[in-house]
Amino acid sequence: MSNPVLVEVVRGGLVESRHRGAVAVVDADGASVLALGDVARPVYPRSAVKPLQALPLIESGAAERYGFGDQEIALACASHGGEPAHVEVANRMLARAGLDASALECGAHWPSHQASTQALARSGGAPSALHNNCSGKHAGFVCLACAAGADHHGYVKAEHVVQREVRGAIEGLAGASLSADQCGIDGCSIPTWAVPLTTLAHAFAKFGTGQGLGLERGKAAARIRAACAAQPYFVAGTGRFCTEIMKLFGARVLVKTGAEGVFCGALPELGLGVALKCDDGATRAAEVAMAGIIARFLPMSDEERAAFDRFLRPALRNWNGIEVGGLRAAEALSQ
Amino acid sequence: MSNPVLVEVVRGGLVESRHRGAVAVVDADGASVLALGDVARPVYPRSAVKPLQALPLIESGAAERYGFGDQEIALACASHGGEPAHVEVANRMLARAGLDASALECGAHWPSHQASTQALARSGGAPSALHNNCSGKHAGFVCLACAAGADHHGYVKAEHVVQREVRGAIEGLAGASLSADQCGIDGCSIPTWAVPLTTLAHAFAKFGTGQGLGLERGKAAARIRAACAAQPYFVAGTGRFCTEIMKLFGARVLVKTGAEGVFCGALPELGLGVALKCDDGATRAAEVAMAGIIARFLPMSDEERAAFDRFLRPALRNWNGIEVGGLRAAEALSQ
Repeated sequence: MSNPVLVEVVRGGLVESRHRGAVAVVDADGASVLALGDVARPVYPRSAVKPLQALPLIESGAAERYGFGDQEIALACASHGGEPAHVEVANRMLARAGLDASALECGAHWPSHQASTQALARSGGAPSALHNNCSGKHAGFVCLACAAGADHHGYVKAEHVVQREVRGAIEGLAGASLSADQCGIDGCSIPTWAVPLTTLAHAFAKFGTGQGLGLERGKAAARIRAACAAQPYFVAGTGRFCTEIMKLFGARVLVKTGAEGVFCGALPELGLGVALKCDDGATRAAEVAMAGIIARFLPMSDEERAAFDRFLRPALRNWNGIEVGGLRAAEALSQ
Repeated sequence: MSNPVLVEVVRGGLVESRHRGAVAVVDADGASVLALGDVARPVYPRSAVKPLQALPLIESGAAERYGFGDQEIALACASHGGEPAHVEVANRMLARAGLDASALECGAHWPSHQASTQALARSGGAPSALHNNCSGKHAGFVCLACAAGADHHGYVKAEHVVQREVRGAIEGLAGASLSADQCGIDGCSIPTWAVPLTTLAHAFAKFGTGQGLGLERGKAAARIRAACAAQPYFVAGTGRFCTEIMKLFGARVLVKTGAEGVFCGALPELGLGVALKCDDGATRAAEVAMAGIIARFLPMSDEERAAFDRFLRPALRNWNGIEVGGLRAAEALSQ
């Protein structure tokens, strides 16, 4: 059985491309609200679980010890564009622990934000690990190690105390142990454990509501949600889906993208968690699918709906700026 | 019915992502040699038909009149990386007709070749239409208009003599008329007409062999094939699939990528044409699928097979250079 088509790409009146995938929407009790496609197959959540991976940073007291505010906590949850402000906050986080970019083990890449790449090149610069889209998360990992009095070297390894803590937090929210034989290495070198979409969606429903988390973890989840809602620019960047959606809806929606077409989210007022994956790994389709889910469940004012339309039905423009087509949620998603 | 999985993306022992699609391999008589998935559905061929779109440039005598050699003819078939040598040849083509970049109507974008983008930014420059991956094709279009004594302005429009000639050449090879109600606008603003993969594959079988084309068109097709085989760098660029494959196999393989997961090719010694599309539009998968078809049909020496392996089974490396997985042709393709 193949997964349903979630998103269609239209050009000149024809459907030019099609993205299949699976979507799970689950409430905080674990009851399925919507299941499209194979939601039981384990998928690597990749960066979509960064908000969960940030829990130990808060729970351990490390964030408080180093005086982290909303920007630092949002950046710890980010897949950012490597814009100057992102780099500055990552650097500031490391400085609070008396360290610098040399402590990061995520590798370097040019900023995904094109204007920042061009500006960096124009100034004769080259990218460092601070420009890596995961540098905020990694700065948080380094600070977590330091606050615990552990050697931060090798913090990306599964056996390091940092990754053991992170794994434990995800297992706690998922209500399941993570299997070593379903573990891959992520783009930034940390382990990524495969879990079913239903499990991920349930974890995000709990993360979004605090239900079943206990007092301390519930407070930590609320702190992370508040930071992302207050500083969505630091979760992604200029013009990016996660940033723009959280700017539009504030604390009503938490969304986080992951590589290979994964998207997770929480709709706290509805008590729902969302997890989806496009089979083919396409981010453009995962964004439209997430927009389709938000449109389906979240009550919106007419103004919000109008502002939201460009995420639900993004236009395709060519190099002359001519609108040549667009993306849209397919029937399975839009009911 | 969904199309079969053509390509799998593997990480940590799990299949992380899957690309479905359809493939047609057809001989010059139009007989199907291999058909996977829905090969009758019309698809926009996009840039994959650039070698066919270059036929009027040769047949009209424009290429000869302006003294075009292999580099210019290869660039007229190119989706190039906007590297300095690509820009130089596109500029030279226009200069032969007494024109410059201002005649191009393809729009501007930063070079897809990252080092060229960085170098351009570092020098304080900005991209022009010459950096557009289609600038060689468009320079050819402009020259075709000029050689015919036509006003080149508006050469991207379907009703201009240039696009009428291009459409006629594709119809001649496809053996079918192109329907105005299945026409989209391409990234570079010219029309793209949807045709079934079987028709595209048949057109490439004829293009690769000359069979059924008549003397003049057969000679023009051979001239284009020879130019691409002699100067594959000008068909794509540094490290790119089309360039590397044609460097490896010379005139034995003609391959051309198109946007949205399309790939066309010819295996002249076998009399075969190939056309494929990944449903989701992914280039990474279209490349591996084309490699799978080449591996299945083209006799190779052990040396060639060893050199070819990185296209058939490309590794995925993360930002630290660690191999974390790879792509591979799925069962449907590898038999």
